[in-house]
Amino acid sequence: MRFTETLTAIVVGLAASAEAVKVNPLPAPQSVTWGESGPKNVGWLELRTDARGSKNQRLVRDAFDRAYSTARKLQWVPQAIEEPILKYPEIPTGTGNEKREASSWLSGVDLKIADWDAELKHGVDESYDIKIEASSNSIKINAETVWGALHAFTTLQQLIISDGKQGLIIEQPVEIKDEPNFPYRGLMLDSGRNFITVAKIKEQIDGLALSKLNILHWHITDSQSWPIHLDKYPQVTKDAYSPREVYSNRDVADIIAYAHARGVRVIPEIDMPGHSASGWQQIDESIVTCVDSWWSNDDWPKHTAVQPNPGQLDVINEKTYDVVTDVYRELSGRFTDDFFHVGGDELQPNCFNFSLPIRQWFAEDPSRTYHDLNQHWVDTAMPIFTDEKNTGGRKDRRIIMWEDVVLSHDSSAHNVPKDIIMQAWNNGSDHVNKLTGMGYDVIVSSADFLYLDCGHGGYVTNDARYNVQENPDWEHPNFNYGGTGGSWCAPYNTWQRIYMYDFTRGLTDEQKEKVLGVAVTLFGEQVDDTVVSSKVWPRAAAAGELAWSGNRDPETGKKRATYMTQRILNFREYLLAVGVEAAPLVPKYCLQHPHACDLYYDQDAVE
Amino acid sequence: MRFTETLTAIVVGLAASAEAVKVNPLPAPQSVTWGESGPKNVGWLELRTDARGSKNQRLVRDAFDRAYSTARKLQWVPQAIEEPILKYPEIPTGTGNEKREASSWLSGVDLKIADWDAELKHGVDESYDIKIEASSNSIKINAETVWGALHAFTTLQQLIISDGKQGLIIEQPVEIKDEPNFPYRGLMLDSGRNFITVAKIKEQIDGLALSKLNILHWHITDSQSWPIHLDKYPQVTKDAYSPREVYSNRDVADIIAYAHARGVRVIPEIDMPGHSASGWQQIDESIVTCVDSWWSNDDWPKHTAVQPNPGQLDVINEKTYDVVTDVYRELSGRFTDDFFHVGGDELQPNCFNFSLPIRQWFAEDPSRTYHDLNQHWVDTAMPIFTDEKNTGGRKDRRIIMWEDVVLSHDSSAHNVPKDIIMQAWNNGSDHVNKLTGMGYDVIVSSADFLYLDCGHGGYVTNDARYNVQENPDWEHPNFNYGGTGGSWCAPYNTWQRIYMYDFTRGLTDEQKEKVLGVAVTLFGEQVDDTVVSSKVWPRAAAAGELAWSGNRDPETGKKRATYMTQRILNFREYLLAVGVEAAPLVPKYCLQHPHACDLYYDQDAVE
Repeated sequence: MRFTETLTAIVVGLAASAEAVKVNPLPAPQSVTWGESGPKNVGWLELRTDARGSKNQRLVRDAFDRAYSTARKLQWVPQAIEEPILKYPEIPTGTGNEKREASSWLSGVDLKIADWDAELKHGVDESYDIKIEASSNSIKINAETVWGALHAFTTLQQLIISDGKQGLIIEQPVEIKDEPNFPYRGLMLDSGRNFITVAKIKEQIDGLALSKLNILHWHITDSQSWPIHLDKYPQVTKDAYSPREVYSNRDVADIIAYAHARGVRVIPEIDMPGHSASGWQQIDESIVTCVDSWWSNDDWPKHTAVQPNPGQLDVINEKTYDVVTDVYRELSGRFTDDFFHVGGDELQPNCFNFSLPIRQWFAEDPSRTYHDLNQHWVDTAMPIFTDEKNTGGRKDRRIIMWEDVVLSHDSSAHNVPKDIIMQAWNNGSDHVNKLTGMGYDVIVSSADFLYLDCGHGGYVTNDARYNVQENPDWEHPNFNYGGTGGSWCAPYNTWQRIYMYDFTRGLTDEQKEKVLGVAVTLFGEQVDDTVVSSKVWPRAAAAGELAWSGNRDPETGKKRATYMTQRILNFREYLLAVGVEAAPLVPKYCLQHPHACDLYYDQDAVE
Repeated sequence: MRFTETLTAIVVGLAASAEAVKVNPLPAPQSVTWGESGPKNVGWLELRTDARGSKNQRLVRDAFDRAYSTARKLQWVPQAIEEPILKYPEIPTGTGNEKREASSWLSGVDLKIADWDAELKHGVDESYDIKIEASSNSIKINAETVWGALHAFTTLQQLIISDGKQGLIIEQPVEIKDEPNFPYRGLMLDSGRNFITVAKIKEQIDGLALSKLNILHWHITDSQSWPIHLDKYPQVTKDAYSPREVYSNRDVADIIAYAHARGVRVIPEIDMPGHSASGWQQIDESIVTCVDSWWSNDDWPKHTAVQPNPGQLDVINEKTYDVVTDVYRELSGRFTDDFFHVGGDELQPNCFNFSLPIRQWFAEDPSRTYHDLNQHWVDTAMPIFTDEKNTGGRKDRRIIMWEDVVLSHDSSAHNVPKDIIMQAWNNGSDHVNKLTGMGYDVIVSSADFLYLDCGHGGYVTNDARYNVQENPDWEHPNFNYGGTGGSWCAPYNTWQRIYMYDFTRGLTDEQKEKVLGVAVTLFGEQVDDTVVSSKVWPRAAAAGELAWSGNRDPETGKKRATYMTQRILNFREYLLAVGVEAAPLVPKYCLQHPHACDLYYDQDAVE
């Protein structure tokens, strides 16, 4: 095809620049320098370390074994490559018939870790470097901590590819120096709207580790169900969807251990005082309010919840705080991370009015507002959340809340401690700017860039808005035509939208320091085991690179979305190969024909 | 919960009406009459027929065995019920602990079929009735043809439920009289953009049969790949994505036989003369045009294709018709259905200009237009498509084309035979009206109601439109905010949108007679095995009921979307239980709490 030949010239041009890579690991390392002497064969790789009896020695060895055995099993043939097309005129198709020449053998990995005992926690050093030299038969890996070493392994496993003859090779010489731009790189999963099995949660953790995301933010409960066992209040799981749809203590420990072994922290969220009905109501009916109300009221200004079913904690009832203390204390003991998310989003004033104590509280002083009521919650609950008696003895407990607690127009609190981490979800970088300006550390989860559930249409039923038969033209979008189709957020965030997000836009350097990182978010109204992996992957990996090494070429400062394309298309196939059911992004034609599916021939169209 | 009790009164009210059902099969039968004497136990059911040696005797017995063994294996506990809540205060959760009393036993099925030998073809009688009487220990099924009997079995298997004690029961007495409103009820799958395995295609057929859809419209090839083997031109599958991603003759026969056994017709589509590059180019490069062009031209008015990669048949080159004849003749022999789809959509004038013969043809007579050029295709190709030498001897071959051949503003043909069936995809019922008014039989696939691929964002890369960082408010939607997000059609069509479509709106009775039915459509740019089932199901089942018994209550004439809710939520769980990976529509809370997730309490909100 003439077209392909023309394109080749372009790609060859690119290949001569600094971005030229032999293989294309994701996220792109901060720095990769390739030489020209060609591939080496990968023999049986022995891992040699300077562990000297660290408790983490086994963890590191297991991680290496996973990476290396995966590379051996996959015999990976890159499925989508950024290579010059002239050099590889036949696009590999995974049949393993291609042959690459390799002249010498690699037989070991020399791993040095400066601090073998550093714990997996916020801000731990995750840097590493990998060096393969023409003159050496070993791969040299240096890392500050074991958590950096784990990242080195996930890079290395993507570098080791098939030689087309049942053997493995690695392109070299190569030197990679790598570290994350942001310490918080997360995925939020929701097991409150629909249950997700332990096996499927582990599959997500596999994807997180491979794409160097390091946080599983687990939105465990919501008004719809309470799927986690509590020793103190075993009755809460009467509000699980079924006895099978419960996380036992052992399940939780299993998930945490699985994640820890892969460098992923598990941060629990118990959403309070909004989104609270199931579970709580089984402990004491008086601590929840408006659970009996009709959520939409058929009159939106009077709705008691933004979605069915309604329910909020009764923040005036003193019993509420006793129960909150018990629940928080037990889960602080079970979850090992320093961070704990206590929700705080989407409080509905109408819902609070279903509580007699709250109505009486307002009557006591007519100057009181819903802002004051939320302040009462913050003032009463925060001492519980920070009391070492409740944090399992942690002095360094950090609480995360959704931004609403300070930004909600009708119910924000006035005076919220500045050491609470705010998770921003509305208004893109404007709210990141506002929150960091207020002095808060911020996790960026802006819905119109980073929410993975957007654009799947609404789920509430008996909804006449779908019943419009008229068909406007494209110039005049409506609910059913070019519009949202009932999605609470729309459109669907494609990987390109996620990747191109400049989430620190307009921030001062001081404000940028307050940005901890990003988390993609998958609320679960239309998610369970059947679709969770395809809704998360490979899109979460775009966020992974965004937070790891950014969306811009380090030399030119230009957006590198077009160079990300083949990388993420290849990574999707890789995820699938290791058992993460990632969705296809394009016709396979596009991954077999680099850049043929670009909108613009001009490779600098995205700036 | 007070709310639940209030709702109960509503549901009890409904239960007293004609819609009250003991279980809730989908699609809703045309007529169900329940008595009050309570369930019977289902013993070992013997199938007794009046087959008298018909060739279809085995097919019917196999279908019965599938239905009955599924019912035995599932021990189904309805997961979402429309029953009065007071009568079932504990919502079943699939644990099988509920007990229902049954007093007597059913031990046989008496099946009578008037015409055992009627073939599965367009317009075959699909009616059936089922009768279970208090005085009888057998289930009586009558059908005109075996294809009606198969539908009776899929209804029956949904009626047989668990008794909570490892046994099965069926509510009775009951009399069901049923038949489809429309003979054509289809799903279009696309294996041209991405390959779908035979196993996954069979999974779709399982879903089709269960929801009484009777057509698999198989869009086999497209410009991106050619995945089907041809004896005459084995080189076409050089343009399959890999040697594994090819349908052999045996695969095709396997799919057709699997579908036939379940009452599903397989209609192949070879899209011509547009969407043509892969495969054709391997036979003869001169029969395709513009495959070397840059599809978007970085200047949209000059684009040569609506998506990458470009390619159209050279409709002036005489060799083209020789090859078309060979390909069509071979596939007419392989596919057994009377219908054959030859595409005809989205011709691009700019693409034709890459052909020297076409440019010369235009130069010969300056009055010629692209309309004339398409007329030349129709005039030359249609005799090939109808010639009995090419149809495998069929005299009753019917050709289907996309509506573009008569409605495209820049390239419609002038004079298109009225016996071609038009598949409508633009402008909702307006185009159904227009096409039936022109005298064509019409299959309705209106994109803004029935396309299952809408709303997943764009897939073309190097696209700066995603790079807008500004964040408007909801009053001002844009590409990335409340808009299409690059989806060629948007928003996502929810099951409610599909189900509420009045596709014969504004038609005269005579025009309505020309509507053959509906087909939901899943183009495959972002679809392969990982997501095909969850994108199709359970939404296709909403179209199934729409075409089978309609979206209105037969007595009141009002839309019955709110009554469909629990039926489709239950059906989704049923699909999952039989191995069809259908997506969740709602938080499970909604299926366990009938109507709690309605937007309006007023159950007549949808009219």
